[in-house]
Amino acid sequence: MMPMTGAIGFAGSPIDRADALRRDPARLAALIAGGEALLLELDGLAPVAAEALRWLPLKSPDAELVFLGLLDGRARFAAVPVAGDADPVLARQALWQAIEQLPAADLALYGGARSLLDWHARHRFCANCGGPTASAKGGWQRDCGACGASHFPRTDPVAIMLVEHGGKLLLGRQPRFPPGRYSALAGFVEPGETLEEAVTREVQEEAGVTVGNVRYLFSQPWPFPSQLMLACIAQAETDRLTLDAEELEDARWYTREEVALAIQAGEGPFNPPPSRAVAHTMLRWWLDQP
Amino acid sequence: MMPMTGAIGFAGSPIDRADALRRDPARLAALIAGGEALLLELDGLAPVAAEALRWLPLKSPDAELVFLGLLDGRARFAAVPVAGDADPVLARQALWQAIEQLPAADLALYGGARSLLDWHARHRFCANCGGPTASAKGGWQRDCGACGASHFPRTDPVAIMLVEHGGKLLLGRQPRFPPGRYSALAGFVEPGETLEEAVTREVQEEAGVTVGNVRYLFSQPWPFPSQLMLACIAQAETDRLTLDAEELEDARWYTREEVALAIQAGEGPFNPPPSRAVAHTMLRWWLDQP
Repeated sequence: MMPMTGAIGFAGSPIDRADALRRDPARLAALIAGGEALLLELDGLAPVAAEALRWLPLKSPDAELVFLGLLDGRARFAAVPVAGDADPVLARQALWQAIEQLPAADLALYGGARSLLDWHARHRFCANCGGPTASAKGGWQRDCGACGASHFPRTDPVAIMLVEHGGKLLLGRQPRFPPGRYSALAGFVEPGETLEEAVTREVQEEAGVTVGNVRYLFSQPWPFPSQLMLACIAQAETDRLTLDAEELEDARWYTREEVALAIQAGEGPFNPPPSRAVAHTMLRWWLDQP
Repeated sequence: MMPMTGAIGFAGSPIDRADALRRDPARLAALIAGGEALLLELDGLAPVAAEALRWLPLKSPDAELVFLGLLDGRARFAAVPVAGDADPVLARQALWQAIEQLPAADLALYGGARSLLDWHARHRFCANCGGPTASAKGGWQRDCGACGASHFPRTDPVAIMLVEHGGKLLLGRQPRFPPGRYSALAGFVEPGETLEEAVTREVQEEAGVTVGNVRYLFSQPWPFPSQLMLACIAQAETDRLTLDAEELEDARWYTREEVALAIQAGEGPFNPPPSRAVAHTMLRWWLDQP
């Protein structure tokens, strides 16, 4: 059921997260001081080059550092930028160029680092009491000195789904999408529901269609800012749509031929999701099914 | 592959989340003032009775209200308690009695409400700037008046896995477990990894075992405080274990007969996870496989 390794964008990070080191402040401090560690070079939250990630020798830091892990025998760190990015504009040209061009392993490493750094930059205060927080456990935790609360990086699960009816696939467009773009419906999994219930609810809310037989396909991390995309497929009871205009500007049923044209020839009746988005991988997976 | 409906604890909430109402402050205010709405009766974050959820007529509120949704034609609300519960002690006797006894639909509704209320109680301040936040969108958002940041309820994805080798199953015990308890290994999915990568990493970190062929089984919301449990199964390359003593006090391989004794007769070689925990459902699912 899984696509081939390497086909899932932002997956396959080569780094060893070295969980035990995070809990060892003395060893972390020695790695930072030792002269062998490397710092991920970033411009704010963006890679500085589209062809490959760049690493600098780690000098004594003037910013909060996060410990990314070990790679090729060397400790890897990144520095928390001044500002995060609460509302990442996915169409930012330079960033998208890097996302399309970075080797798969670099893209995965970048995605994890970006989510973590953005979380730090936007979580410098304690949600429980408003006091300042400080990074702990190599950047995998923030602790509040005032009330003692610990805070952990967020990863928000998102249900994203292929909805089938009579051999056709339901794709929709959100108002913020680039021209012609249609993609899989998606929504955050909320407290108190299973992934499968979230799929059913989202399709009902957005397109007014009841679905059944929800099946999980595969998953992808998505670092804008930090989602876990949980790809599913479901069967619709009907092809009659009632759209929620706030969520979807349009939604349509596409044939296999139309999806194949859009994905493979780039000249179909819609502009497909970009190659490293999970929706793209889902459409390719669908075309591969007998 | 899925267990039967009703077999997954905290799943199957009967409430209509009525997403469109959340975005409509005028209609929400009318529902609160209208005299027909009901308030979930809680003692802090706990149900007031173990047999069924209790509902009170909604009077003019002296606490922040969250809109749970519509049920049996009536709007349902809950009030944010003074304090949340950052470190829920799962062995709390009265709460566990309710978890075991509540009808499935009530348990699911309670779980979702509990996660949401606890999030409000522990997120009254802005993580971005430290300013006070106010509930918005019927309690499905908090907005900061100072910096304008919006915050959303957390749902943390957790990988939980059955690890198989030679027909046996790997179960471990954490230091905080009740006496004799062994359960499935589990850990939070981190930024920058897929669910399947999280499974592989967690088993490697906790038990020193390499696994392959990771497959998703089913999911369950878990409201202590707000996890999405993503149940998987994986195959171990070896049965030799190297435990991380901070994470696991012990781990062992159990035969089908031993798991069956523990789950079905309650007198096996280990104390199994409680019936409404996803690990219990996973063990039952495993016993049902041919």
